[in-house]
Amino acid sequence: MLKDFERKKPEDKEVLNAEIKEIRETLLGQQQLLRDAKLPVIVLIEGWAAAGKGSLIKELISEIDPRFYNVVSPVIVPESEERYPFLYQYASAIPENGKITFLDSGWMESAVRKFLRHEITKDEYRRRVRQVNEFERQLRDGGYLVLKIFLHIEKKEQFERLQALVDNPETEWRVTSEDLWQHKEYKRFVEAYDEFMEKTGDTIAWHILDGSRRKTAVRDAMKLLAQKIQHGLDNGRYVGEPFEEEFELKEMPKLADVDLSLTIDDEEYKKELKKLQTRLSELHNVIYRKKIPVILCYEGWDAAGKGGNIRRVAYPLDPRGFDVRPIASPLPHELNRQYLWRFWTRLPRTGHICIFDRTWYGRVMVERLEGFCSEKDWQRAYNEINEFERQLTDWGAVVIKFWIHIDQDTQLARFTERQNTPEKQWKITDEDWRNREKWPQYEVAVDEMLQKTSTKNAPWYIIESNDKKYARIRTLKIIIKALEKACEDHFEQMMDR
Amino acid sequence: MLKDFERKKPEDKEVLNAEIKEIRETLLGQQQLLRDAKLPVIVLIEGWAAAGKGSLIKELISEIDPRFYNVVSPVIVPESEERYPFLYQYASAIPENGKITFLDSGWMESAVRKFLRHEITKDEYRRRVRQVNEFERQLRDGGYLVLKIFLHIEKKEQFERLQALVDNPETEWRVTSEDLWQHKEYKRFVEAYDEFMEKTGDTIAWHILDGSRRKTAVRDAMKLLAQKIQHGLDNGRYVGEPFEEEFELKEMPKLADVDLSLTIDDEEYKKELKKLQTRLSELHNVIYRKKIPVILCYEGWDAAGKGGNIRRVAYPLDPRGFDVRPIASPLPHELNRQYLWRFWTRLPRTGHICIFDRTWYGRVMVERLEGFCSEKDWQRAYNEINEFERQLTDWGAVVIKFWIHIDQDTQLARFTERQNTPEKQWKITDEDWRNREKWPQYEVAVDEMLQKTSTKNAPWYIIESNDKKYARIRTLKIIIKALEKACEDHFEQMMDR
Repeated sequence: MLKDFERKKPEDKEVLNAEIKEIRETLLGQQQLLRDAKLPVIVLIEGWAAAGKGSLIKELISEIDPRFYNVVSPVIVPESEERYPFLYQYASAIPENGKITFLDSGWMESAVRKFLRHEITKDEYRRRVRQVNEFERQLRDGGYLVLKIFLHIEKKEQFERLQALVDNPETEWRVTSEDLWQHKEYKRFVEAYDEFMEKTGDTIAWHILDGSRRKTAVRDAMKLLAQKIQHGLDNGRYVGEPFEEEFELKEMPKLADVDLSLTIDDEEYKKELKKLQTRLSELHNVIYRKKIPVILCYEGWDAAGKGGNIRRVAYPLDPRGFDVRPIASPLPHELNRQYLWRFWTRLPRTGHICIFDRTWYGRVMVERLEGFCSEKDWQRAYNEINEFERQLTDWGAVVIKFWIHIDQDTQLARFTERQNTPEKQWKITDEDWRNREKWPQYEVAVDEMLQKTSTKNAPWYIIESNDKKYARIRTLKIIIKALEKACEDHFEQMMDR
Repeated sequence: MLKDFERKKPEDKEVLNAEIKEIRETLLGQQQLLRDAKLPVIVLIEGWAAAGKGSLIKELISEIDPRFYNVVSPVIVPESEERYPFLYQYASAIPENGKITFLDSGWMESAVRKFLRHEITKDEYRRRVRQVNEFERQLRDGGYLVLKIFLHIEKKEQFERLQALVDNPETEWRVTSEDLWQHKEYKRFVEAYDEFMEKTGDTIAWHILDGSRRKTAVRDAMKLLAQKIQHGLDNGRYVGEPFEEEFELKEMPKLADVDLSLTIDDEEYKKELKKLQTRLSELHNVIYRKKIPVILCYEGWDAAGKGGNIRRVAYPLDPRGFDVRPIASPLPHELNRQYLWRFWTRLPRTGHICIFDRTWYGRVMVERLEGFCSEKDWQRAYNEINEFERQLTDWGAVVIKFWIHIDQDTQLARFTERQNTPEKQWKITDEDWRNREKWPQYEVAVDEMLQKTSTKNAPWYIIESNDKKYARIRTLKIIIKALEKACEDHFEQMMDR
C-alpha cells in the first residue's frame, strides 16, 4: 500500500552497481532463451508523475536487443480512448511471442485519472476494474508473463522534482497541467491508486518500488523482471484452466431442431428488402451521429450464403461508415499473439458498423477441431469470448451474432452448383469438401458454442438459410430491431457513463 | 477541364439500367480473374462536396465480394495529416494484390484545399503536386491499376443539393462548414481543380464524370473500372522501366577504398561516449519540442556491429520519443503490396526518432541478389527510393543513412567468436555464412547503391567499424551534427511551409 509505504534505506553505491551489473548480465543471457521459448512478456510501469518511469524503462532496455522489445507510451486522452473501448490501446500493444512490451503507464493510470476527474462514473470505473482483471487473466492464461510495477515517490519529493523541472527552461515543457493537478490531488490519488492495486492484485501481483532511490529501484525492477522471465523459462508456457463465470444466457435450440423449411416468395422478398434497406440506411445515419459502434458477426456453414447476406446488409450503408472484415487464417504475426489480438485491432470506431465475415469463434470451431489450440485453450475461450464481448457492449456497442444455417443436402447442392459453374468455381476448394466430411463434429462444436456464448448482451441468432432470401430478410429485421433499441437506450447509457 | 465541361444529355432510363446490369455482370466475372492474376486496383474518387461520391462508391462495390475491396475515407485534418508526411495516409491505404481500394476523395482534395485555405505555401503545393506524380508513377510501375475519377456538378446544382441537405433535419449534420466554404469559393476551386488535374494527368489520366446525371455517372464509372481491369488482365502485370531523374548527389568512395584501420583508445572512447550521449539527449528534447521527425537508417555487413551501435545511440534517448524498427523478411501481407508500403506504415510521427535496423535498401541488395524482384524493379528502385526520401525530407525529416563497414577478415573473426560463445550463437545462422560467400556480389551492389542514392538531402555515411568503438563515436557525431543543423534550420523551413 502506498499509504503506509516505507522508504528504502540508502544502499552502498558500489554494492548496488555490482548487483545491477550482475542482473544485467542475467537479463542479457535470458534474451535468447526467451526467444527460443517463444514467451511474450509485458512490463507495466505505473507510478506518479516525475517518479522516473521513463528513466527506469531506459535502464531496463539498455542491454536488450532492440529487436526484442517495444516501448509503448499511451497518451491519456488520444483518439483511441475516445473512439475505441477502454482496453483497446493496451490490447493492441501486446507483444509477439519471444518479445517484451514495456508500457510507460497504462490501464491503471487511465482508469484512475478518468475517475478522479469525474470523466467516468463510479459504475463505469468498477466495470473498468473488472475489465482489467479479465484482461490480465486472459493474458496470463494465454502464456504471457506480466510484471506490474508502481513507482512511488512521496508528495514532498514530487513537489521538489516538479519544481526543478519547471525551473529549468530546458525541461519546463515536460510538466503538464495534468501533472500539477495530480500533485494538488496527491492524497486522493494515493487512495485511488491503493484501491485500484488492491482490486487488481490477485491474478498478477503489484510491486511498489521506491522512486526516490533511483538505483535501488533499477536493481529491484531488473531483479523482478529476471525472476519473472526465469519462472517462465523454468516452468514452460503457462496454459490457463477453463473457469466458470456467470453470464445471463439466451436459450438456444439445437441446430438439429431448427426448422429449415421457412421460405419467402419472390415478390414479398423484393418489397421487404427494399423497405428494410431503406430503414437500415436511415438508422445508419442515426447511429453515426450518436456515435454508437455496431459489430455484426457472421458465422455459418460453407455455402450457407454468408457473402450474399452480408452484401444485402452492406448495400444500403454509407461506405464511409462501415467496413467488412473478412477473417482468414491468422498471419504469422497474428498467430504469435493472444488469439483475440487480431480482433481487438480490427474493432470499428464509435459510430461505425463493422461486419465480421467469420470471427473470433474460429477458436471454438476450426481451432478446436483441427487441434490448432489445446483443449484447455478452447474450453477457456467460451468465457474469455463472453468477457471480450461484454467489454464491447459495456463500451456501448451493439453486438449481434448470426449463425447462417443450412442442412447437409442444401450444402451439397450448392457445392455441386459451384463446381459446375465456371464463375463460381473459385468459391469452392478442397478444404470445403474436407470440412463437409466433418459436419457431425462441427455440429457438436457449434451447438456447444451457441449454448455457451449466446449472452443477453451479445446474442446469437440462428438464421434459416436453405432459402437465402428468407435469411436475408430475417437478418435485416434483427439488425434493424437491435439498432432501433440501441438508439432509444442511448441517452440512458450515456447518463450511466 | 471543369471550366468548359458540358453536361451530359439525359439518357433513356431503361437502356441505362440494362447497360449497368451488363457491366455489373462483367465486373462480377472479373473479380476472380483479378484475384488469380494478383492485380491490385486503386480507384480514386475525387469531386465536389454533395456531388455524390459516396453513393457512386456504393454502386461500384454493390456486387463485389467484400473480401476483395476496401473503402477508405481520408479525413481532411486528421492526426495523420498533421503528424505524418502528406502522402502517408494514402500510401498506407494501398491494397494487397488481387484487391481493390476505393478512396472517397484523396490526395487531390487534400492538396488543393490546403492550398486554397492558405495552410500551405505555393512552394509546398508545388512539391505536393510533384509528390503525387511520383507516387502515382511508382504505383503504376509496381503493377497497380489506378483509376482516377472526378465527379463534377455545377455551382447551381451544388447549391440546390446543399440546401436540400440542410433543410432536412435528418441530413443537416452532413453539411460541414468546409462544404459551405467550398461552395462560396466555387470559382477558385474550379481553377485549382483544373490546374491540379492538368499537372497530374500525364501518368494516369483523369476522368471527369457528370454528377448531375447519377445513373450515367454510375454506368461510366463502372465501365471505366471494367476497362481498367480488363486492360490489366489482358496485358499482365505491368513492370515499370528504370528512369532517369536528377538528384544532387554526394560523392561516395568505393568500399574498397575505405580506410578501416581507424581506431579509438579506450579512455578516449569512454569520455567521448558520455559527452556525446549527453548532448544527444539534450537534442532529443529540442527536436521533440520542435516536432522534427528523425529517421536513422542502418545497413551494413553481418556482424559489422549495427546492434551495438544502435544501442549506444538509443541509450540516451527518452524511450517515449523513439522507436527501433528491426526489418526482417516481409510478411505475406507486406510482400503483397508495393515494396515501400511496409516502410511508409512504419514512419515516425513528427518529433520522434525512428531507427531502422535494415531498411528499404533491401530492394537493391538482398532482393536484387537473390532474384526476389526483377532487374527492372531493382534498377527503378534507386530513383524511387530517392523520391521517397525526398518526400521525407520535404516533410521536414532528418534522414541519415549509415553503412556499417568492416572487412572480410573482421567478419570471419566475429562469426567465429559468435559460433564459439554459447550466449552469442543465436546471432549467427547458416544464412550469414551463405551471405558471406556472396561478399563480392554484395560489394558491387552496395557500391552501386551508395553511388546512386547518397542524395544531399538524405546522405549515406560509410562508418568504419573494424573498431566498433570508433564506429559508435563517429555515428553519434554525425547524428548530433545533423540534429543541430536541423534545429537551426527549423524556423527557416517553417516559413517555407
